[in-house]
Amino acid sequence: MIRVDSDLLHAFIRDALFSRGVAAADATVVADILLAADSRGVESHGSARLQPHYLSRIARGVLEVQPQIAVDRETPTTMRIDAGNGLGHPVAKRAMQHAIDKARAANIGIAAVHNSNHFGIAGYYAMMALEHDMIGIASTNASRCVAPTFGRDLMLGTNPLAFAIPAAQEEPYVFDFATSTVARGKLEIAIRKGVPLPLGWAIDPAGAPTTDPPTGLAGALLPLGGSGIEGGGHKGFGLGLLVDILCGVLGGGPFGANLPTSTGSQEEGAVSHWFMAINVGAMRDVDAFKRDVDRELREFKSSTPAPGRDRIYVAGELEFANVRDAKRNGVALRESVFEELGSIASELGLAAPAALAVN
Amino acid sequence: MIRVDSDLLHAFIRDALFSRGVAAADATVVADILLAADSRGVESHGSARLQPHYLSRIARGVLEVQPQIAVDRETPTTMRIDAGNGLGHPVAKRAMQHAIDKARAANIGIAAVHNSNHFGIAGYYAMMALEHDMIGIASTNASRCVAPTFGRDLMLGTNPLAFAIPAAQEEPYVFDFATSTVARGKLEIAIRKGVPLPLGWAIDPAGAPTTDPPTGLAGALLPLGGSGIEGGGHKGFGLGLLVDILCGVLGGGPFGANLPTSTGSQEEGAVSHWFMAINVGAMRDVDAFKRDVDRELREFKSSTPAPGRDRIYVAGELEFANVRDAKRNGVALRESVFEELGSIASELGLAAPAALAVN
Repeated sequence: MIRVDSDLLHAFIRDALFSRGVAAADATVVADILLAADSRGVESHGSARLQPHYLSRIARGVLEVQPQIAVDRETPTTMRIDAGNGLGHPVAKRAMQHAIDKARAANIGIAAVHNSNHFGIAGYYAMMALEHDMIGIASTNASRCVAPTFGRDLMLGTNPLAFAIPAAQEEPYVFDFATSTVARGKLEIAIRKGVPLPLGWAIDPAGAPTTDPPTGLAGALLPLGGSGIEGGGHKGFGLGLLVDILCGVLGGGPFGANLPTSTGSQEEGAVSHWFMAINVGAMRDVDAFKRDVDRELREFKSSTPAPGRDRIYVAGELEFANVRDAKRNGVALRESVFEELGSIASELGLAAPAALAVN
Repeated sequence: MIRVDSDLLHAFIRDALFSRGVAAADATVVADILLAADSRGVESHGSARLQPHYLSRIARGVLEVQPQIAVDRETPTTMRIDAGNGLGHPVAKRAMQHAIDKARAANIGIAAVHNSNHFGIAGYYAMMALEHDMIGIASTNASRCVAPTFGRDLMLGTNPLAFAIPAAQEEPYVFDFATSTVARGKLEIAIRKGVPLPLGWAIDPAGAPTTDPPTGLAGALLPLGGSGIEGGGHKGFGLGLLVDILCGVLGGGPFGANLPTSTGSQEEGAVSHWFMAINVGAMRDVDAFKRDVDRELREFKSSTPAPGRDRIYVAGELEFANVRDAKRNGVALRESVFEELGSIASELGLAAPAALAVN
């Protein structure tokens, strides 16, 4: 991994998008969120996506750089937004802010977005609720790469769900997960490493379980819980379909077989998002709640490890450690991603971010 | 299985609880919900629980038959309720009704309940939203029988989540699942059948994976996704902990290590529930939404099966088929449960429900 100064990386992402016609404010939001993904160690959703998922879609003219965003329907607690086929991040951030504003006035707020594009890490939006002493929820459907239980067709995206819950002295509980067993990127890593897949990650194009990474990429991912119902695969399928209904159907966008399929590293558009904020103070004294969340998280972290394990980790903990590391040592980028930023810089006539001197 | 007339079974459950001092209206609600579980084929949450989870707790004096229910905090969209250590079902039904009423006025409603007892199937409450053209969500924490990822202590209950989404001509989407791979009952069934457990269901008391059912019962269940992180066990753990926070911490009841552990078939109290209703009409035209849900469900059901499978099932579908079967042929009870109802009848001086003549 190569370490890069976070401010320079942020400016580079922003300038690259700006040079392609994205409004400065929107480009800044995308840079914030890609940098957050890289800092949190979610490399699949960071700078690595700048070229294939955003700049390339802009260059192909399939994504509006100056979208017409419209509110379809609004009540004091809810809002449905047409993103005008723009970048997902800016409209997603606005939508989550609307959910928070509504929760400030009415204790709960929901915002759904359709006609949008890939929005990066769901956890970023859920975490926006934290500073308001609210619980945040964010989700999105996505291009199809997952087969339903007992099936073989690509019918669902990795359809993530993210929850953020404020704590007092502990780091907040940030649980951001794909409803498939793993993301496609894990299969690509297995190819690079030359290792087989565990059973339960993927099926071949005929629908049979496979441990061969290229065959799995040509076939389909499996829902959380794996193949069939023995390990609970129907529960992961149930969650993925739930997300598709909350985002796609309730949001009023494409859903099910009408979503595009994932093709290689391209992430196609037409996706829908779903955001929610819940004001903790409506239910309990906020300080008492946050102290109890501290106690809950500490109890889990200090519970007895299984043989060969040193401790228990709660959701979000490793990502916060990555953020601290990125602040100290620079943002870690895979060499291939760092080189791709260089290519983008050449193409757009920008200065590429430089590698930091390693301590 | 023995078939029983549903009206007679309902009257029997109601009378048994009434004879133990439960108010008639409350006893009727419990009978409704246990019968719903038996009819849906969720035998672990039906009549089988009448003696060990409800009558026995009443007899031991650890559950209030005439509880003092109090509203701790209320806003136009939220409510937090102290169940007074009463039966879970009546207060859970009231709480979900409050969430629905609030959603009718404000489009979203949440109700949290603490100081309660086992409430039966979560799906029953989620489904209450359907006739109001709302999306229903229900959840509860539960006595501890699940270990966290990399751990071995009993730290979580099976902590179910249920979602119900209205459709037009299709049956609604009812997704009701435990956040553990399986419930404890599946291990008991394996003992009866003399078959080993699949890996990923349970660990032994030292924390190592086991395929021996009695060892697993003495150890701990695993979160959805199984042991470790390879199959996504950390996601099931993340969901279980999320439920414990939403129910126990936000509801203001015990959580984490302060919940009782599951001991055999006893289900101890002190649990908390969480309910939510979302008015579909706030987001979209209700008829258009329900037609789209139909289309979504049909697309999945008609997608291509994997080799050796005849079709794809969506969540809730098998349970609706069981309900139709129970209406035609009577409610199916396991012989041991049927005999236990006879023992209850003798003890309480009631007429036991008779077996239906088999066609």
